[in-house]
Amino acid sequence: MNDFSEEERESLYKAIYSRRDVRSNFTSEPIDEQVLMRITSEPIDEQVLMRILKAGHHAPSVGFSQPWNFILIKNIETRKKIKESFEKEKSRSSKLVEEPRRSKYLSYKLEGILESAINLCVTYDPTKTGSFVIGRSSIPATGVFSVCCAVQNMWLAARTEGIGVGWVSILSNETLRETLHIPDHVVPVAYLCLGHVSKFETKPDLETSGWLPRLKLDEIIYHEKWLQGKELKPTVQ
Amino acid sequence: MNDFSEEERESLYKAIYSRRDVRSNFTSEPIDEQVLMRITSEPIDEQVLMRILKAGHHAPSVGFSQPWNFILIKNIETRKKIKESFEKEKSRSSKLVEEPRRSKYLSYKLEGILESAINLCVTYDPTKTGSFVIGRSSIPATGVFSVCCAVQNMWLAARTEGIGVGWVSILSNETLRETLHIPDHVVPVAYLCLGHVSKFETKPDLETSGWLPRLKLDEIIYHEKWLQGKELKPTVQ
Repeated sequence: MNDFSEEERESLYKAIYSRRDVRSNFTSEPIDEQVLMRITSEPIDEQVLMRILKAGHHAPSVGFSQPWNFILIKNIETRKKIKESFEKEKSRSSKLVEEPRRSKYLSYKLEGILESAINLCVTYDPTKTGSFVIGRSSIPATGVFSVCCAVQNMWLAARTEGIGVGWVSILSNETLRETLHIPDHVVPVAYLCLGHVSKFETKPDLETSGWLPRLKLDEIIYHEKWLQGKELKPTVQ
Repeated sequence: MNDFSEEERESLYKAIYSRRDVRSNFTSEPIDEQVLMRITSEPIDEQVLMRILKAGHHAPSVGFSQPWNFILIKNIETRKKIKESFEKEKSRSSKLVEEPRRSKYLSYKLEGILESAINLCVTYDPTKTGSFVIGRSSIPATGVFSVCCAVQNMWLAARTEGIGVGWVSILSNETLRETLHIPDHVVPVAYLCLGHVSKFETKPDLETSGWLPRLKLDEIIYHEKWLQGKELKPTVQ
């Protein structure tokens, strides 16, 4: 039973393979509040944004708990605080890596907090549909996992809308909580920057720059048990 | 800049909105080892399976760490052990919910471990690309989050291939570790059942059965801060 045509299937694979983590190519004008308002108030963008958020809302969730919230952030003062947290955490984490990789790491452009059209904080609220959630008792982390599926849906949706998304994870969750007034029982899961882009790169930036190679597909597939067997060889490369 | 046609975009949304968590409609023959071998050794399926796994491998990952492994499980004895763990955990968790919801919960079909064509355990290995991973120092959980994005890619890919996927989260991770020989430093993230299906339901089973309703999109969107503002109204329902 398959109700997808080959073209439809290829469209999904196109989205999956051309999706990029965008940090460098956002096309917003130089940032000030007036410009931001202009960009984000374009009617077409609002429709697009809502389609992207709706795609997130239709992700799978453990016990149909739909535990996500989407906080949209345009305010430039808020963004500046988040950016400060990024700079602080980037500097802190750079001490964990030795030269020459430290300099390389520090030279990378790793976020588009201010240049993107809008920021989006995706959160996890474990209390949203009551204390008993089907399928969450044995492995409580499945609640947060659901939110990640929502992020990936939005990322792919954005790609087909021509909107770039960058996930900023060099951040203090404490700063996010304070700045966005997120209550203690809610977990910030992802901080995303969304905006129109001049282009999508063909490969991940960290692959292009030689930081890490793409691992081979057949090396990550095991059979029956961890590390075991390869009687079923990958035939797609 | 948008290199996706309207048709291509709609194909992704079709995959997102028609993707289901499948537990009931797997079309495998009654289970025995011989039949399983027959089903899973069909050459077309191997190609399809590899396309699905490759889609997972092209998910975003923090610092391009690609921390996932895919353990494919056909062996019926292994599956029986996993199924036993499911039964035990289901019974245990049912004590956390009061009647009449308990009986309702217990009546649900919540997994297709034995009936599906193949099982897939998706794991997180934090050591795969060394101890320093760009973007993982401030929020270490981003490593696991990457693996969840891979799961969602595979789920959508499978949907366009006509393959149903069910995520079984009523399980003991300890049993998974023991049964699949997963080492201590590796985290089992998702246990998936994949197979051809007689049909895809139009709504989530838990929505159809009245367990929970779909939340309204505009109730999960906040503006600038938690719980705040709705000056930007959703225009897509």
